[in-house]
Amino acid sequence: MFKNLNKTFKFFLRKQSTIYALSSGQGKCGVAVIRVSGASTELALKCLTGLTNPKPRTAILRSIKHPSSHEVLDKGLVLWFPGPHSFTGEDSCEFHVHGGIAVVSSVLNALGSLPDCRLAEPGEFTRRAFHNAKLDLTEVEGLADLLQAETEIQRKQVIWSALSKLYNRWRGSLIKSVAHVEAHIDFEETETIDEGVLDLVVQEIQIMRDEIRKHLNDGRKGELLRTGVKTVILGAPNVGKSSLMNLLCKRPAAIVTPIEGTTRDILEVTLNIGGYPLVLTDTAGLRSETNDIIEKEGIIRAKNSYDCADLVILVLDSLKVYSWLHNHPPSSTSDYLKCYIEKLGLYDLINKECVIVFNKSDLVQDLLDLQNSEIVHLSCKSEDGVSNLVNTIGNKLRKLCGEPSAEHPSMNQVRHRQHLSNCLKCLDSSLDRSSSDTVLMAEHLRKALRHLGYLVGATTTEQLLDVIFKDFCIGK
Amino acid sequence: MFKNLNKTFKFFLRKQSTIYALSSGQGKCGVAVIRVSGASTELALKCLTGLTNPKPRTAILRSIKHPSSHEVLDKGLVLWFPGPHSFTGEDSCEFHVHGGIAVVSSVLNALGSLPDCRLAEPGEFTRRAFHNAKLDLTEVEGLADLLQAETEIQRKQVIWSALSKLYNRWRGSLIKSVAHVEAHIDFEETETIDEGVLDLVVQEIQIMRDEIRKHLNDGRKGELLRTGVKTVILGAPNVGKSSLMNLLCKRPAAIVTPIEGTTRDILEVTLNIGGYPLVLTDTAGLRSETNDIIEKEGIIRAKNSYDCADLVILVLDSLKVYSWLHNHPPSSTSDYLKCYIEKLGLYDLINKECVIVFNKSDLVQDLLDLQNSEIVHLSCKSEDGVSNLVNTIGNKLRKLCGEPSAEHPSMNQVRHRQHLSNCLKCLDSSLDRSSSDTVLMAEHLRKALRHLGYLVGATTTEQLLDVIFKDFCIGK
Repeated sequence: MFKNLNKTFKFFLRKQSTIYALSSGQGKCGVAVIRVSGASTELALKCLTGLTNPKPRTAILRSIKHPSSHEVLDKGLVLWFPGPHSFTGEDSCEFHVHGGIAVVSSVLNALGSLPDCRLAEPGEFTRRAFHNAKLDLTEVEGLADLLQAETEIQRKQVIWSALSKLYNRWRGSLIKSVAHVEAHIDFEETETIDEGVLDLVVQEIQIMRDEIRKHLNDGRKGELLRTGVKTVILGAPNVGKSSLMNLLCKRPAAIVTPIEGTTRDILEVTLNIGGYPLVLTDTAGLRSETNDIIEKEGIIRAKNSYDCADLVILVLDSLKVYSWLHNHPPSSTSDYLKCYIEKLGLYDLINKECVIVFNKSDLVQDLLDLQNSEIVHLSCKSEDGVSNLVNTIGNKLRKLCGEPSAEHPSMNQVRHRQHLSNCLKCLDSSLDRSSSDTVLMAEHLRKALRHLGYLVGATTTEQLLDVIFKDFCIGK
Repeated sequence: MFKNLNKTFKFFLRKQSTIYALSSGQGKCGVAVIRVSGASTELALKCLTGLTNPKPRTAILRSIKHPSSHEVLDKGLVLWFPGPHSFTGEDSCEFHVHGGIAVVSSVLNALGSLPDCRLAEPGEFTRRAFHNAKLDLTEVEGLADLLQAETEIQRKQVIWSALSKLYNRWRGSLIKSVAHVEAHIDFEETETIDEGVLDLVVQEIQIMRDEIRKHLNDGRKGELLRTGVKTVILGAPNVGKSSLMNLLCKRPAAIVTPIEGTTRDILEVTLNIGGYPLVLTDTAGLRSETNDIIEKEGIIRAKNSYDCADLVILVLDSLKVYSWLHNHPPSSTSDYLKCYIEKLGLYDLINKECVIVFNKSDLVQDLLDLQNSEIVHLSCKSEDGVSNLVNTIGNKLRKLCGEPSAEHPSMNQVRHRQHLSNCLKCLDSSLDRSSSDTVLMAEHLRKALRHLGYLVGATTTEQLLDVIFKDFCIGK
């Protein structure tokens, strides 16, 4: 009890103070935007620029001075956004200063010297916007994703606030249903009531249940698009896995980030292929038998990567396939593949999205009997077949992630999946016709409503908010 | 001739097109500022946001759409600054979008799809401001320095545009003098003229010459502050040079950048001590005799660093000094120092600013006979004496760089030194009283004026501008 009081008190204190932060990017640049939000914003504006009663939303060129030493720190544009018509809903302002390290820190220091002003925590501006009902929780998540988006299709997925609209539509409709059922219970014994209302409610809930079920069974498209499609390059030693990795890193539109693997032997690179994000992992070469302990460990790790992968790029040595075919007539390339996959223990490959690459195609010309859209003949050496490979991978990515759509948005957070699954269970229970107890039905619907409330943040706890806001950058 | 025409034509073309760039910093952040400048800015604003005839300098929240696909790219604030009342002097605008990689690149791509719009070159916004007489050349340099400034005192040096004011005052006064002398020549034979005017001119030029001379002889204070004071740590092997370096890197307000040296054995770190920038170099241990070739090379490099250094930190081993004193009674620590400096060939140490550190002070307590403000007793092990060392270095930095002042600004560019030295020579020649030829005097004064013109950019060439603008970031 006291613990909670303490928490509420802390939150109260946090709301009271005025926050400031550098909201634009790091590094030396033309302009840096410093945001201030809270009750003392007008005072801060007056102390630093001498402006009283500034015109709202108008860029004014001012000298920015230290409030006590009155030393000129910089000259820049100042903008005043009185609450509630601001991003946070509170009084806020922006200082547009020169983007040098010393300039920015001098203005931040000057703001810090004012009473009740402190540096914002990560995501605190957005958190205030949420508390002032400027954004709901899925919109907050969408905003975070927009800032994180590295590819064009990731951006499209989050730009429309489509999830927020969908979830709020469901919630609105469920609120109405609950109201109808409760009205039905209240008046059941005292007045004549229209039984048709209850039937309509059941119909509406059935429709919603089907929509939610369909939304849940989307093959994690939105989540894959949000986090990147985990792709692993597999193959025997010396078939050219690393050459393939290097080739892919050079080719696509943009290499986003090379992340050093947590394990010694696995390197991860995030690529952007046709707007879709791909997290590519190179692995140690697989072979069925080895005595080398380090190599064994590498193979275990490669198989672990394989287990988690959404997409597999299996690399084969054309020359080896060719000589195998020579020694096993009248077999086919697909026989070789079957044999190879069994030998390496990749039994469930059939359940995975897979691109098969016949590398070293410069050495062998006639491996044609398995040619279909998922087979790519490639020479890492001459780079023949690279654009074909990139296209093939691009098609796989489109299949896995889908095309973002404003009308049928994909769920993109594990949190959404949890709340919606719980909601779905409650809806199922409410529709259970074995009992026709409307009181019980109302109870299930209220529970379902609570889960949708968690989803959009209408019902929430500080713990949940901490989790959601922790990944924000400072200044947003 | 044709070459020049071509150049002019190119410049004309460059002026014609509308430029855009990300002006705020890189990386994921709350807000990114994209600037547009040029004749097509109003068109760009209309195509991306649908705004026609927007209110100048007012932040308007708009959806930003692709001009041809009309797809929503982001929602953000838009600001319109009609020329000539803008930074560049041309029509310009700003898009404040979400600071995600995909968002920023989608808006930049959309701008790039418009006719006559192209990505700005580094410094091109400022270059346009210069061509539209919004800034003079020393102000441009000051702006570049402001963006580069990493410490508080560096920021202070450039914030006032004090150099621009000083140089323009000299230039204005010289223009007047030239006019008076030329009037004197014109009317010398036809009318009665006031000889007193010429005397006044000579007086003025004498004052200016003295001011320029004093300005030139400031011990490179401004340049040192701008580029950082080159400091080298010297000493015999194993006296604790690297421990000292590490200790200093941990202690000061902020480590700015660790730069890997161009040479194998020399590591450079830029530190901020009390607002002054310090470029600290660790070197190989010095000894008078060695057969190891690599060590010899290291010592040569250490001595080269020593030659270029503005400040030397000489590290001695207290224990060795102690035992030397024991073997050479009745000598003193200063005898040891003299002997040591001679042995290592640091003959000109007396001409350098130097801090002497007696390291390993935890082992020996009584080396007191050389204690003055430039000697620091230190134990890198126990960290005793570190704050004393930091203070001592801070005092040296203050002595070398001075305190920036708006009234007496320090020159901070080699370019300024060249033009002012040339100007000074011409002023000296003009004052040479061996010949009293006023025509010759006028000629010298006109030359002097031309050098001041180069200095503030009133007389300029595209080549010079290329050099000055090349270090700007894109978007400024």
